[in-house]
Amino acid sequence: MAAQMDGKPIGVFDSGIGGLTVVRALRRALPAEPLVYLGDTARLPYGNKSPETVRRYSRTNVSFLLGREVKLVLIACNTASALALPELAGELPVPVLGAVEPGARAAARATRSRRIGVIGTLGTVKSEAYVRAIQAIGDFEVVQHACPLLVPLAEEGWTDDPLTVAIAERYLTELCAKQRDLDTLVLGCTHYPILKPALAQAAAKVFGRPLTLVDSADAMAAEAAAVLAQRGALASGAGGLACFVTDHARITDLAPRFLGEDPGPVAVVDL
Amino acid sequence: MAAQMDGKPIGVFDSGIGGLTVVRALRRALPAEPLVYLGDTARLPYGNKSPETVRRYSRTNVSFLLGREVKLVLIACNTASALALPELAGELPVPVLGAVEPGARAAARATRSRRIGVIGTLGTVKSEAYVRAIQAIGDFEVVQHACPLLVPLAEEGWTDDPLTVAIAERYLTELCAKQRDLDTLVLGCTHYPILKPALAQAAAKVFGRPLTLVDSADAMAAEAAAVLAQRGALASGAGGLACFVTDHARITDLAPRFLGEDPGPVAVVDL
Repeated sequence: MAAQMDGKPIGVFDSGIGGLTVVRALRRALPAEPLVYLGDTARLPYGNKSPETVRRYSRTNVSFLLGREVKLVLIACNTASALALPELAGELPVPVLGAVEPGARAAARATRSRRIGVIGTLGTVKSEAYVRAIQAIGDFEVVQHACPLLVPLAEEGWTDDPLTVAIAERYLTELCAKQRDLDTLVLGCTHYPILKPALAQAAAKVFGRPLTLVDSADAMAAEAAAVLAQRGALASGAGGLACFVTDHARITDLAPRFLGEDPGPVAVVDL
Repeated sequence: MAAQMDGKPIGVFDSGIGGLTVVRALRRALPAEPLVYLGDTARLPYGNKSPETVRRYSRTNVSFLLGREVKLVLIACNTASALALPELAGELPVPVLGAVEPGARAAARATRSRRIGVIGTLGTVKSEAYVRAIQAIGDFEVVQHACPLLVPLAEEGWTDDPLTVAIAERYLTELCAKQRDLDTLVLGCTHYPILKPALAQAAAKVFGRPLTLVDSADAMAAEAAAVLAQRGALASGAGGLACFVTDHARITDLAPRFLGEDPGPVAVVDL
């Protein structure tokens, strides 16, 4: 056990409720940690907003988390990570982890063929954030495909469903046409972890062999654990979760689906 | 031929590109009319924004159209219709038609069983705009079901597709469980007209008989024709279309899909 301990919470924010998959991964990897989640559901989506607006929203989200005395901030939103992380990292009194780099590093470690596939929303694919992050690590071929139906399928809760497998097969067939020798597939959206079994089944069928699926939420949780361990800042308590959103619409339906358990009372805050 | 003619354009706005199905219906019903379309693609979606913001955006959209000297405004967006139409109708120097009432009136005329189904986005279903509009006409039973996957399916262009039919069957099965004697189905979203064949096929299978599908875009075009005829304000020229958006993302892909033809050059405007 580390000499120092830190009972302060880890803070996670996302533009919506998809980031609860990161909270679920954190609760599995670090059950002793208290967690604070903020879903900026009133102002989603961030993907079609200007960089200035996304930076402003990200700052207010981080201020809210710092007000809860967090010891580490996880940005579970691709858009906010890409646009606000560099600035925030230089400004904040606590470490910050983004949504893209942990998944990129995990994929670079996992691949044998050095050929990596990335699936994500239209915004994430267009931003090429994963391509840049993976190719900054080394000489890898990266192919991408946007899968716009996967977010609404996840939100519908059609997770273990032949229709979802059929739709995933269609998307992965298009990815396979770009590079059939990839061995690693990055789930580049916080909504996708709950579709992992369907995606694994579809990938095995399309590629004729299992692919290594890199779950960005797991990768973020693993890096959070490493950062806290390195700083001697792990907690040793009973853990816990405090959930906040900026609009309550659909939270009751969606939160348990992404979190994998009942979130308890979810408070609405006005930022 | 009417004694008076009016060569000024009809103006249509939507938060995105779905409203191009209304333009397509107008071009079929009124081929002599010049049309101006504005898709506020930079600020979509409207569904999760405050009423004040939606009213402000709607006003700037209408100001843009009035600057193009339109003789009639069509609001091809359910949210903007519900929140801004009552105010705008009292303020503008030209008539305004919303997205909900024409479809509601067409459904009330079409039904024999007086039992009407409505499908739409989560926002539209939650607003109960169609329920209120139909029940304001007379004594009808209205059942609704939200179909969040239909918009991304339409945007993917998977229109004549067994997966789309299968997803529509699942949604309509849930609608049928609410009321199996309905005979009329309102397509309560501007994206849905391009899925009409798939929806008709799914409805016939689920209900065991064909339903009358009320296409809101066709209903809006029919009412526009009636309003202009009544005012002696129909055009007699060669028609034409000028398309504007506030952000160019995906326009090249999506516009022909919803319009059913090439839109010509689409100009980006900053409102």
